[in-house]
Amino acid sequence: MTDAFRETVAAVRERATPTDQERERLAAATDRLVARVESATADLPVGTDVVRVGSTARGTWLSGDQDIDLFVRFPPDLPREELESLGLEVGHAVLPDGRAEYAEHPYVTGEFEGYDVDLVPCYRVDSATEARSAVDRTPFHTAYVEEAITPELAADVRVLKRFLTACGIYGSDLRTEGFSGYLTELLILELDGFEPLIEAVADWHPPVELDPAEHGSRAFDDPLVVIDPTDPERNVAAVLSSTNLARFQHHARALLAEPAIERFEPAEPDPLDGATLESHLERRGTTPLALRVPAPDLVDDQLYPQLGKSRLSLAGELDRRGFPVIRSAAFANDHAVLLIELANDELPAIERHAGPPVAVGEHASAFYEKYEAGDAYGPFVDGGRYIVEREREYTTARDCLEGELFSVALGPAVENALEDGYDLLAGDGLAALLPEFEVELARYYDPSP
Amino acid sequence: MTDAFRETVAAVRERATPTDQERERLAAATDRLVARVESATADLPVGTDVVRVGSTARGTWLSGDQDIDLFVRFPPDLPREELESLGLEVGHAVLPDGRAEYAEHPYVTGEFEGYDVDLVPCYRVDSATEARSAVDRTPFHTAYVEEAITPELAADVRVLKRFLTACGIYGSDLRTEGFSGYLTELLILELDGFEPLIEAVADWHPPVELDPAEHGSRAFDDPLVVIDPTDPERNVAAVLSSTNLARFQHHARALLAEPAIERFEPAEPDPLDGATLESHLERRGTTPLALRVPAPDLVDDQLYPQLGKSRLSLAGELDRRGFPVIRSAAFANDHAVLLIELANDELPAIERHAGPPVAVGEHASAFYEKYEAGDAYGPFVDGGRYIVEREREYTTARDCLEGELFSVALGPAVENALEDGYDLLAGDGLAALLPEFEVELARYYDPSP
Repeated sequence: MTDAFRETVAAVRERATPTDQERERLAAATDRLVARVESATADLPVGTDVVRVGSTARGTWLSGDQDIDLFVRFPPDLPREELESLGLEVGHAVLPDGRAEYAEHPYVTGEFEGYDVDLVPCYRVDSATEARSAVDRTPFHTAYVEEAITPELAADVRVLKRFLTACGIYGSDLRTEGFSGYLTELLILELDGFEPLIEAVADWHPPVELDPAEHGSRAFDDPLVVIDPTDPERNVAAVLSSTNLARFQHHARALLAEPAIERFEPAEPDPLDGATLESHLERRGTTPLALRVPAPDLVDDQLYPQLGKSRLSLAGELDRRGFPVIRSAAFANDHAVLLIELANDELPAIERHAGPPVAVGEHASAFYEKYEAGDAYGPFVDGGRYIVEREREYTTARDCLEGELFSVALGPAVENALEDGYDLLAGDGLAALLPEFEVELARYYDPSP
Repeated sequence: MTDAFRETVAAVRERATPTDQERERLAAATDRLVARVESATADLPVGTDVVRVGSTARGTWLSGDQDIDLFVRFPPDLPREELESLGLEVGHAVLPDGRAEYAEHPYVTGEFEGYDVDLVPCYRVDSATEARSAVDRTPFHTAYVEEAITPELAADVRVLKRFLTACGIYGSDLRTEGFSGYLTELLILELDGFEPLIEAVADWHPPVELDPAEHGSRAFDDPLVVIDPTDPERNVAAVLSSTNLARFQHHARALLAEPAIERFEPAEPDPLDGATLESHLERRGTTPLALRVPAPDLVDDQLYPQLGKSRLSLAGELDRRGFPVIRSAAFANDHAVLLIELANDELPAIERHAGPPVAVGEHASAFYEKYEAGDAYGPFVDGGRYIVEREREYTTARDCLEGELFSVALGPAVENALEDGYDLLAGDGLAALLPEFEVELARYYDPSP
């Protein structure tokens, strides 16, 4: 390993490591918060305990982070509804200004002494495999990492988190489809540090499977599989997309080739202005079409998968109908936008349409009879199949998109929004996406790994 | 089987069967011709004999046909050069006004008492498997069919030949890629008549294999395999294309569904006139491009495969470069023409270009470095691969065709002709193909099975 690499990593580690003062302040605040939770739960009709989880509990948080996550554990025989109502009750008692959030199940989020606090009720199950919901597993993850990690490796976890953040792939939410904090910790533990991890990643040939506890009990279809040491049936990297794994590989190689502290700092592009947009439109000469609706009122973990599904369905339909897709993207802000950029805007009046092989009897005869009566060219035979050249249903990309909009599989909230009305922006009309999507479009027109 | 079918077949048989007078005249003329050959060969330094081959010898010729084929057989130890020179010498002696033709090997063709005569020298080998060239096999085919055929089946061979001719698939030359006379005979013999053959063909699921002598000794990759009863290693249907087999199936079904004597009569389309061409061009809205050269001076069996190869290579290249092909065709007359009809005439300035998977190490890095330095959009990552949007080499179909003309695999004579200069006709310019290709274009714009 080069000196430059090690010097770079050392400098990043320096910056990412919380100061002693930060640690002490956090520890004191957490102690006070735990005391408040314990007092709020003392009079409950059921027995509870409080567990510190998340990166602050594991010692792997980044300097500057201000998060405290506390889980309140309830007996496993408590009915779910009661868990939820008692959980919210405790949360509001501890954080009077907090608000309820509804992820997989409800919790309270708020502020305490300047820290962002999540107070999450969960079940006190005996092992992660008995988890009733994802949050029940979290205490086990924390316990595993706390037990296994050293201060040296914790520092390398911080370096890796900075690196993944700079690459835009840190986060296991369904918008990012990247690496969770726990996955980051497991990778550092399993590969024994940042440097050996980066060297390994540069040479990975996905699918890659890691099984720290050597207890994996089923097969996964994901590009990266990291068997959860607390649950042999779970892939901790299930959310990671193949694109983001490839991006990790790309950036790992780039870091090895040219180590630089900038590689650990997120680069926000300059927002795109109208003139630059126009020059890209002209230079590319393509047919971009954008559907714009008011953003559906959904959390990101629901919105982005729906946008992604809708985008791929529409792009696939256009492609099948003879309009090849150059690229597509989905953005969300106040509006949600599906952008599909096509090679052509027009196609001729006829299309070649292949029927069944002549040999398949009734099927083939039905095809022949259907078209023989009409005014298509043919049927004739090519390569053993009936072929017709029939009138094309849509000769412009715009008609095709609008005509097939509701015939493809859209996300339900996206479908509802489109049904309520949409703007279809084409060509220069994309300027209407500025300034709302000036950053997203800047990235679109200056794409990088 | 319906009465209508049987009545139709009976009527065709009636028309196709030579009259007694025709037979007698042919037999007498053949006898005289054989006598002439025997006297011409009497003084040769090597022993020869004369064999009557072809459909007239087998009794399967169509009424009105005027062909006599005689083979002069030489000893198998005669050097090839001597066989050829003696063969031509005999041919010219028997047919003083005949001319030499050079197929697989030379022979003489000419007229005798109003008949078209081929006089072909070959080797007198002991069995078809010892044939040194295709012609050596022919006497064995004739002997096999003569032995096996009955007058009733011979009449059905004639019916089948009429039918295949009407379908445009009779002939094993490389322009037609259809059924040889011998194949026709074997099918009638194997299926025991025209009616059972047509019923079987309607239900065939290619690949279909027939082995009349039950001695096939190797596998074939062809859609129809008929093992030669005189040679276990040969597929008599090797030349038949899958398209033409499918057309046979189509027409067999049509004949069963609606028997009619017209189905045994070739339909020549009305020649296409300029106004009709223009209306098709307008109605289709496609981008037809035609390359026209003076026809290379080749026999059809060489010219058409070269045109076919050139056509497919160019169509494939245009398709790969983003110009999808609706249909393509090749015609030959005084000129040879490659016609390629495309969906688009223009594409945008950029194209999406997928590189290797990021995981493939050096390969991927080389791709990244190549494009990172240039002014393409990207590289970025999608689905695990590097992607760039680079400047497209050709933005018009015409430029693409002309730019890649000599980069693809063309038939050598076609390539030479193109190198000497060509016309590129586009859109309305196709009118320049009239009237030379008025029949071919009429078929192109009214395609049928």
